[in-house]
Amino acid sequence: MSEESEQELGITESKEYSTGDWYAEVVQKAEIADYAPMGGFIVTRPRGYQIWERIQDYLDGWFKDTEVQNTYFPMFIPENYLEREKDIVEGFDPEVAWVTHGGYDELEEQLAVRPTSESIIAPFMSQWVRSHRDLPLRLNQWCSVVRWEATETKPFFRTKEFLWQEGHTAHREMDGAWEETMLRLDQYERVYEDVLAMPVLTGRKPDHDKFPGAHTTTTVEALMPDGKSVQGGTSHYLGTSFGEAFDISYVDEDEKEQTAHTTSWGLSWRAMGALIMTHSDDQGLVLPPTLADPQVVIVPIWQEDNVDEILEYAEEIEAKLSAAGISVNLDDRDHRNPGFKYNEWELKGVPLRIELGPNEMDEETATLVHRPDGEDETVDAEGIAATVDEHLETIFAKLYASAEETLEGEIRDATSREEILGTIGQHGGYVKCGWCGDEECEEPIKDAIAAEIVMVPLDRDEEPVHDECAICGSAAEETAYFAKTY
Amino acid sequence: MSEESEQELGITESKEYSTGDWYAEVVQKAEIADYAPMGGFIVTRPRGYQIWERIQDYLDGWFKDTEVQNTYFPMFIPENYLEREKDIVEGFDPEVAWVTHGGYDELEEQLAVRPTSESIIAPFMSQWVRSHRDLPLRLNQWCSVVRWEATETKPFFRTKEFLWQEGHTAHREMDGAWEETMLRLDQYERVYEDVLAMPVLTGRKPDHDKFPGAHTTTTVEALMPDGKSVQGGTSHYLGTSFGEAFDISYVDEDEKEQTAHTTSWGLSWRAMGALIMTHSDDQGLVLPPTLADPQVVIVPIWQEDNVDEILEYAEEIEAKLSAAGISVNLDDRDHRNPGFKYNEWELKGVPLRIELGPNEMDEETATLVHRPDGEDETVDAEGIAATVDEHLETIFAKLYASAEETLEGEIRDATSREEILGTIGQHGGYVKCGWCGDEECEEPIKDAIAAEIVMVPLDRDEEPVHDECAICGSAAEETAYFAKTY
Ligand SMILES: [Zn+2]
Ligand SMILES: [Zn+2]
Repeated sequence: MSEESEQELGITESKEYSTGDWYAEVVQKAEIADYAPMGGFIVTRPRGYQIWERIQDYLDGWFKDTEVQNTYFPMFIPENYLEREKDIVEGFDPEVAWVTHGGYDELEEQLAVRPTSESIIAPFMSQWVRSHRDLPLRLNQWCSVVRWEATETKPFFRTKEFLWQEGHTAHREMDGAWEETMLRLDQYERVYEDVLAMPVLTGRKPDHDKFPGAHTTTTVEALMPDGKSVQGGTSHYLGTSFGEAFDISYVDEDEKEQTAHTTSWGLSWRAMGALIMTHSDDQGLVLPPTLADPQVVIVPIWQEDNVDEILEYAEEIEAKLSAAGISVNLDDRDHRNPGFKYNEWELKGVPLRIELGPNEMDEETATLVHRPDGEDETVDAEGIAATVDEHLETIFAKLYASAEETLEGEIRDATSREEILGTIGQHGGYVKCGWCGDEECEEPIKDAIAAEIVMVPLDRDEEPVHDECAICGSAAEETAYFAKTY
Repeated sequence: MSEESEQELGITESKEYSTGDWYAEVVQKAEIADYAPMGGFIVTRPRGYQIWERIQDYLDGWFKDTEVQNTYFPMFIPENYLEREKDIVEGFDPEVAWVTHGGYDELEEQLAVRPTSESIIAPFMSQWVRSHRDLPLRLNQWCSVVRWEATETKPFFRTKEFLWQEGHTAHREMDGAWEETMLRLDQYERVYEDVLAMPVLTGRKPDHDKFPGAHTTTTVEALMPDGKSVQGGTSHYLGTSFGEAFDISYVDEDEKEQTAHTTSWGLSWRAMGALIMTHSDDQGLVLPPTLADPQVVIVPIWQEDNVDEILEYAEEIEAKLSAAGISVNLDDRDHRNPGFKYNEWELKGVPLRIELGPNEMDEETATLVHRPDGEDETVDAEGIAATVDEHLETIFAKLYASAEETLEGEIRDATSREEILGTIGQHGGYVKCGWCGDEECEEPIKDAIAAEIVMVPLDRDEEPVHDECAICGSAAEETAYFAKTY
């Protein structure tokens, strides 16, 4: 490869000064995704899909540990099904992709490509639930959904088709359904904190921004380095609205007919976008060891006269790490020099690099270099697997700490419209203030700087941070968290 | 539940005399799948989806062991992309579902819901492949595809939307691509034989029945108990036709531009249909232990005065099996009697039932009952996990042997059109005969009894079974295997 194309390999945009362009460049050059020929669609490449598979593995395991059963419902929903719950149709109608023809024939009834599956799943829940013994019923599917939003494509954040999981459950009483809502919210929080190395906030969406038909929408919110909030996953308590619209009822222990309480909850590949945005830097992708494959790359440094010995030493180290279950790649390509390899694996986000040259070989050591901050340490080859495990844990902790630092101090108070605008304008982040609960009080903020109320506290009884609404001055009902969003 | 509804639980159709109705009944009553409101679509319920997940786990593991990388491409393909390979467009045009509207707006270019993804994947392979070092490139995706065929719905066999995996690879030379084609065919054969407990035949499709644009289509064919053949998975060597149509080229070691040779290969949830059709019986579903979850159900048999002891004994046995990694369910429901439980778990296909009553408890034994044939044996509780493992292996072997018996002796010779018609008419199964290679010689058989040439031998140099074409009497080029199909 020529000098010029080696440069093309690297990231040219700045995370700090042109975050959007930098993000797009990292996604493409780290071979995470490419843009499809149709606006709004992307191609998820192996390095990207592998991250999604890992996230799936964690979440799916937790779901199965907590009595969730996977299913697959059709990708199409007949128009009249979509219309059965009025909030759903109003909420999604403008965003639905419609199949109107099959082969050469026009369909009698056009079919929606699923924007979400409540309206096809609920009628089957209705059939499958007869007795209180059939409850709770917990279904989930991993699939893709389509929402025809006409905004600019931003891989994993804004795409017309996206991958997600959608859970749908039915319960006898409100209590069980609410516990379910919170259990899934907790699992989303856990996947962000323990797997993606990202601290998050949890809260409720304001009423005017709830999922269509929901009683309560809960959310995990993650703060991005540019001061914007990302809705990282939502868990909805739907009350009995879907139970009533689709007749999900059961005979209770006293032989009485009751309407089931339902929930739905979803986490999409947007989590991958938030992950990339949070940890990556001007050298490229940064992945936590929980998601990276490989977790470790070994770069041997040889001269013509010691290739064989160095390579043998490297293979020994590789074997020890592999045997301990560490995912490791020995980069023994002979048409690339070590410097090129360092850059390439930094670009691709491998958490830990091991350099093995003549010094390391002679002294039976290995030089470990942390991807996030370049910190290096030369360690004994003896016990290398345990040492590497510790370093991987340290790297995870560094990533978490750095994201935590971004979040901390980025939640500020405001008591007036001007202060909200000024604070978000200057610092980004979250601004919390008293709020009367009226959607109209969000509008001036939205209009001026495109910030909105991303959440209110989970606890409905929590006293508002101030007595008065920061915008209209009436009595505050709760605390609003304003932020710009993706 | 009343007597009447207990009867409704059981299978009423006969596998032997009304195979189609029986199949549909097993699928629904064993809670594998339900019919969706739109003809041609089904809902895959947890018990069905779990089987698909297991099949995925096996195959995906083997793919990853052999250098395949998973990806995700958009579910829509622009019309002009689909048209770029003329065989593809001719092959799939009549079966494509078209998205024409997004939200309230008509799209400028209608989008095909993927019937298969060659025409969206190949252009990206073209971008990603530059040098011989980028090859081989092996991509796979697990997704759903849509083909608008207007036939009667038969869950997993005939549905407009179906789940599958599609592999797409590019190679330097024909040799590598052909090896790839055969490797994937071998893996399909292996999943049938080692996981689904079904022997299969492997062969090539006749030229007139190849995948559109393919040089060679290879197939695994499974014989169903009603004498029809199911195409269980196909692996295509595409030659350079897609490489040329989509410009997948690379610079070789001598700096020369070359066209890549490509393959594609797919296995769908039809495998589940074949599995159910093959092993199940008039009591309901039968699953091999490789796919069943649970593999074992424990039914305790108690009286009012010994419930606690029996249950304690059952829990001990359950714990021993669980600890050994056997998937086990202790059915301790107290509102169902043992007979009801036997029927229910037989219907749902659990391979091994363990009955534990006072005798078993007193003698420290357990009675094991095999689902496929009802064979029972009372065994020592000591070493129960190893004993159960052996029995599960025996059950797998029984299923395989029974399917093998169905296949053996069902491959017959014929030397004339009348003999083909008579033999398939009387026995079903495969009839092999000399064939001149002309599609026209298939037509009279197709027209008369809807049997077709399902395969010819893999080895192109194999001498035909007879010197003359059984239909037209000209010189035979190869051996044709005629059979009725699903
Ligand atoms: Zn207000
Ligand atoms: Zn002929």
